[in-house]
Amino acid sequence: MQSIASSASRLRAGARVLRAVAATSTNVQLRASPGLALRAPALAFTRSYASDQKVVAYTVDKFPGYTRDDSFKKLNENDVEYFRSIVGDNGLIYNNEDDLFAYNTDWMNKFRGKSQLVLKPKTTQQVSDILRYCNDQRLAVVPQGGNTGLVGGSVPVFDEIVLNLQGMNRIRGFDSVSGILTADAGCVLEVLDNWLAEKGYMMPLDLGAKGSCHIGGNIATNAGGLRLLRYGSLHGTVLGLEVVLPDGTILDNMSTLRKDNTGYDLKQLFIGSEGTIGVITGVSILTPHRSKAVNVALLGLNSFEDVQKAFKQSRIELSEILSAFEFWDINALQMFKKHATPKAVMENEYPFYVLIETSGSNKDHDDEKLTTYLENMMTDGVAEDGVVAQDETQIRSLWSLREGFTEALGKEPAVYKYDISMPVPKIYECVEDMRQHLKEGGVFGAEDSPVTDVVAYGHVGDGNLHLNIAAQRLDKKTAELIEPYLFEWVSNHQGSISAEHGLGVAKNEFLGYSKSPVMIQLMKKFKKMLDPNGILNPYKYLPTH
Amino acid sequence: MQSIASSASRLRAGARVLRAVAATSTNVQLRASPGLALRAPALAFTRSYASDQKVVAYTVDKFPGYTRDDSFKKLNENDVEYFRSIVGDNGLIYNNEDDLFAYNTDWMNKFRGKSQLVLKPKTTQQVSDILRYCNDQRLAVVPQGGNTGLVGGSVPVFDEIVLNLQGMNRIRGFDSVSGILTADAGCVLEVLDNWLAEKGYMMPLDLGAKGSCHIGGNIATNAGGLRLLRYGSLHGTVLGLEVVLPDGTILDNMSTLRKDNTGYDLKQLFIGSEGTIGVITGVSILTPHRSKAVNVALLGLNSFEDVQKAFKQSRIELSEILSAFEFWDINALQMFKKHATPKAVMENEYPFYVLIETSGSNKDHDDEKLTTYLENMMTDGVAEDGVVAQDETQIRSLWSLREGFTEALGKEPAVYKYDISMPVPKIYECVEDMRQHLKEGGVFGAEDSPVTDVVAYGHVGDGNLHLNIAAQRLDKKTAELIEPYLFEWVSNHQGSISAEHGLGVAKNEFLGYSKSPVMIQLMKKFKKMLDPNGILNPYKYLPTH
Repeated sequence: MQSIASSASRLRAGARVLRAVAATSTNVQLRASPGLALRAPALAFTRSYASDQKVVAYTVDKFPGYTRDDSFKKLNENDVEYFRSIVGDNGLIYNNEDDLFAYNTDWMNKFRGKSQLVLKPKTTQQVSDILRYCNDQRLAVVPQGGNTGLVGGSVPVFDEIVLNLQGMNRIRGFDSVSGILTADAGCVLEVLDNWLAEKGYMMPLDLGAKGSCHIGGNIATNAGGLRLLRYGSLHGTVLGLEVVLPDGTILDNMSTLRKDNTGYDLKQLFIGSEGTIGVITGVSILTPHRSKAVNVALLGLNSFEDVQKAFKQSRIELSEILSAFEFWDINALQMFKKHATPKAVMENEYPFYVLIETSGSNKDHDDEKLTTYLENMMTDGVAEDGVVAQDETQIRSLWSLREGFTEALGKEPAVYKYDISMPVPKIYECVEDMRQHLKEGGVFGAEDSPVTDVVAYGHVGDGNLHLNIAAQRLDKKTAELIEPYLFEWVSNHQGSISAEHGLGVAKNEFLGYSKSPVMIQLMKKFKKMLDPNGILNPYKYLPTH
Repeated sequence: MQSIASSASRLRAGARVLRAVAATSTNVQLRASPGLALRAPALAFTRSYASDQKVVAYTVDKFPGYTRDDSFKKLNENDVEYFRSIVGDNGLIYNNEDDLFAYNTDWMNKFRGKSQLVLKPKTTQQVSDILRYCNDQRLAVVPQGGNTGLVGGSVPVFDEIVLNLQGMNRIRGFDSVSGILTADAGCVLEVLDNWLAEKGYMMPLDLGAKGSCHIGGNIATNAGGLRLLRYGSLHGTVLGLEVVLPDGTILDNMSTLRKDNTGYDLKQLFIGSEGTIGVITGVSILTPHRSKAVNVALLGLNSFEDVQKAFKQSRIELSEILSAFEFWDINALQMFKKHATPKAVMENEYPFYVLIETSGSNKDHDDEKLTTYLENMMTDGVAEDGVVAQDETQIRSLWSLREGFTEALGKEPAVYKYDISMPVPKIYECVEDMRQHLKEGGVFGAEDSPVTDVVAYGHVGDGNLHLNIAAQRLDKKTAELIEPYLFEWVSNHQGSISAEHGLGVAKNEFLGYSKSPVMIQLMKKFKKMLDPNGILNPYKYLPTH
C-alpha cells in the first residue's frame, strides 16, 4: 500500500486520466491509478465482549412487551445430562455467564437473551436427537449460525436453548463439471469461497460478514448481499437442503440436480424461514466459475438521477459482465472518514458515488467494455469523476470502503438501522423525505439535535437501500418519528420493510406493512403445521399479536 | 432460404472453413456458412383433432387402475347455470363433445378425459368465485393453460371441470429500469417475449412450445427449457405470484421487488405444483436484457466424452456469454431426417452433435471468444467438424433442428418418452445401457422388433436427458422392460425421474424413485392443508397409493 499523501495525489492523477479519456474520446487502455488511499478497516464482525458484558441490556428490558411463553418447560439438570449424552462435554456450554455471553448477544450488542445452555452438535443425527427431545419436553430452541444477523433472529429472547451449528463444518463434496458444492450448514462462507477458489469456482453470494457467517445461516435468512444482481437469489442457486424438522425428522432433500420436477419444492420454504420451521444442516448449492478478469471502478456523481442513468446504461453496455452496482451518498463517505483515516479517494467530493464491478472471462474485452462505458458516462455528463482499480489490492480497497460503512456507523453512539427495498427511482426520495421529516419533527438539523446524520447506501441493482439514522442517543421521540412513518412510506411505494436482513425480533410486528392479512394467516398455518409446539425460534418472525 | 443442393454444398464449404481455421490456428474472423439446409419444421404443437377424435383412447381405459373419487359431486344443470352467471355464455363450453375434445385431450393424444364443462374466466375474481363454489360443492377442477404438457397434468382423468386461463391474457405492467414484467397467467410465452423484444428485453425461459404455452402454466410446471443454463430457474426469476387457493381465497403476492425478506416465500410452493394447491392467475417476473449479439454454432463429435470436454471448456472460455449447450446423438438426427427433408448439415455424419449458443452485448468480443473456443475444440481434436450460423435465419434453422426432434418422434407409430436428469458423466451411459437392456430383453435389434430406435437429446448444461424409445406399437413386454428399470437406474445414480416435464398422471406413482417417504409424506400434508377437499387436479402429482 502506498503512503497516504503520495497515493492520494496519484489517485487524483488517476481520476484526471479518466477525465482526459472522456474529453478526447480516444480509445486508450485504462491506466493505473494505484494505491487507493483508504485503509481497509477490519471487518465489522470482530467483537470484544468482555468489556461490554455489563452494559448490554437484555432484549426484554430494552423492548418491553415480551412475555415468556409458559408452555415452554424450564431447563433442568436432567435435560442437561441428556444433552451431554448426545454432544459430550465439549459440545455444550452450561451455566457459565461469561462463556454464554457471546451466544446470548448479537454482534451489535443490541439484542441479548438469557439462555443457560448452548449446544454444539457435530452431526445431523445429533441435531435430530436434540430437537426430538426438545419437542417432546417442550424446550424452546434458537438455531444459531455465525450470529452476524442484524434483526436479533439468532439470539434468544428468554431462556431458549442455543443450538449452534459451528461444529458442523465439513465440505461434503464438489462436482467440478457442474460446479455443485455440498457442505455442512456450519461452514463459514469465506472458507467455502476460498476452498472453491482453488478449483476455479466461487460462492454465488458475498457479503460483509463473510468471514463469520455460516452458509446455513445465509440460507436460513435468504442472504442477498453484493452480487445478487449477477448470480441471482438463493432460491435459484440452492439446489438441495438437509433440514431437521422440529420433531427431529430428518428431511433429506440434498439434490445435486439443476432440474428436478418431482413434487413440491419443499426446500424453498426453509430458505428465508429464519430457523422457525426447521434447522438446516446440509446444503447443496450451484457455484459459478470464478471470473478470470475482475474490474472495479468508482464514480462520483451529482444526483441520484445520474446514479440511475449510470445504472441503466451499465445494464446495456456492461450487461453480462456486470457483477455489482453499489451506491452511497456523501453522508456515508463522511461517516466513513469520521472513523477511518486517511480520507481521499478523488480530488473533489460528490453528492453520490457508485461502485461498479465487472467479472468476465477475457480481460481485454472487459477493459474495453468498461472503458467505453466510463467514457460515455463522462462525456454525457452523467459522472463527474472516476477511478479504476488497477490490481487486486486496489479492488479490495474500494470494496472495503463500501463494506466499511457498517463498522463506521457502529462507532456512533446510536444508530437506527433500516434495510428496505422499493422501485429504484424511489430510493433517494425516501432518504430525502426522512431527513425532512426528522427536521420538521425537531430531532435533526440543530446543533443539539439527537439525530446527527441520515446516511444512505445500498444495492442499486436490487432496489435495496440501507438507511441509517445516526444519533447521539436512542430516544423515544425520534423512534416514534421514524416508525411506523418509514414503514408506511415503504408500504405506500410497494416496497419491502426488510429487503435482506429479515424479520427476527426487530421487524416481526411490522410484517403487515409488507404482507397482506391473508398472506400472514397462511404463514401462521405453515408454522403451526411444521412446528405445532412452537419450540423453534419463538417470539420472532411472525407477528405475535 | 437457399435451395437444398446449393445450400448443402455451401454448408460443407462453411464447415471446411472452420476446419481450416483450426488447422492453421490463425486468428481469422468467422466466415459465412450461409443457408443451413434444413427446412424448419412447424412447431410440434399444432393439432388436428377432428380426424383423431374417434381413435383417441380415454386415460382410464388406457391406464387401468383409476377409480373416480365418489366424494366429488357430479355436475348438474344448476351448477352450470351458476357458472354461466359468472363467466357468461361465451365463457363456457358445455356438453359439446366436439368442442370439448381439445380441452379433454393432451396434444400428444396420449391422455383423454371426460369433462363436460370448460370454464374460461377473464378475471381473478371470476377464478375465485368459481373455485369457492367448486370447493363448497365438492366439484373437482383441472386448471389448464396452453395444454402443452407431456405428462397428462392439464387434462381431466374423469369428469373434472376444466378451468382454462386463456381468457386472462393482459400484460399488467413493465418497469424498464429493472426489467420486471407483470402479466396475467394466461399470456402466451412467445407473445410476452415478442412484446418484450420491442423494449430490449426477453423472457428468461424458452421452450419448443412457446407459441402455445402460457406463462402461468410454465410456472405451475416449473418449466426449464433451453436457456436455464444462463438465466436460471423460475424459482429465481419469478418475483411474485397471484394465486387463487382452492377455497377461493386470493393470495396477492405480486411483489415486484428483487429482494424481500418478509416471511416465508409462499409463492415458491406454487412453482412446480402443477395446479394441485392453487391456480396461478398473475405473474411478476424478472426479464433479462435482450442480447445485442447472438451466435449459434453446431459441432460434430465422436464420443460423449468429447461432448463433456466441449461443455467443460465452454464454461471456461465462453463463460458469461454461454446461453445454451444442447446435445443430440446421431439417432436423433436420423429420426429428424426420416420425417423432414432436406438432410444435410455437415459433409459427414458424427455420433454426437452439440449446439452452442452465445448471447452477449458486443458482437466483436463474442465472435472472438467463440472463434477461439471453436479453434481450440478443433485443434485439440475434441470436435470433428463445425458450422457457425451467420444470420438470424441460420440461427433459427439450427434451433429448429434441435426443436424438431419432438415433432419427428411424434410421427412414429409409438414413442415411450422420458425426461430425466443425473450427473452429466452418466447421461449417455444411461442411453447405452437402455439399448443393451432392450436388446437383451428381445424387443430391440431384430428386424421385426417392436422397438425401432432409442433416441437421445437434451440439455447437457443441466444434466437433462430426453430419452425417447420409438416403437412400431405400444406393447406390454416393452413397457415392463423399460419401467421401473429406467427409474431404478436413475435413482441409483442420484437422478430425477422427471427433470422438467413434471409428474401429472404419467409419473406420480413413481415419485418414490426420486423422493424419500419422509418427503412424500410432507408433500401430502401440504396438499391436505391447502386443499382439504382435494378438488384441485385430483388423481395426479402425488402417489395415490
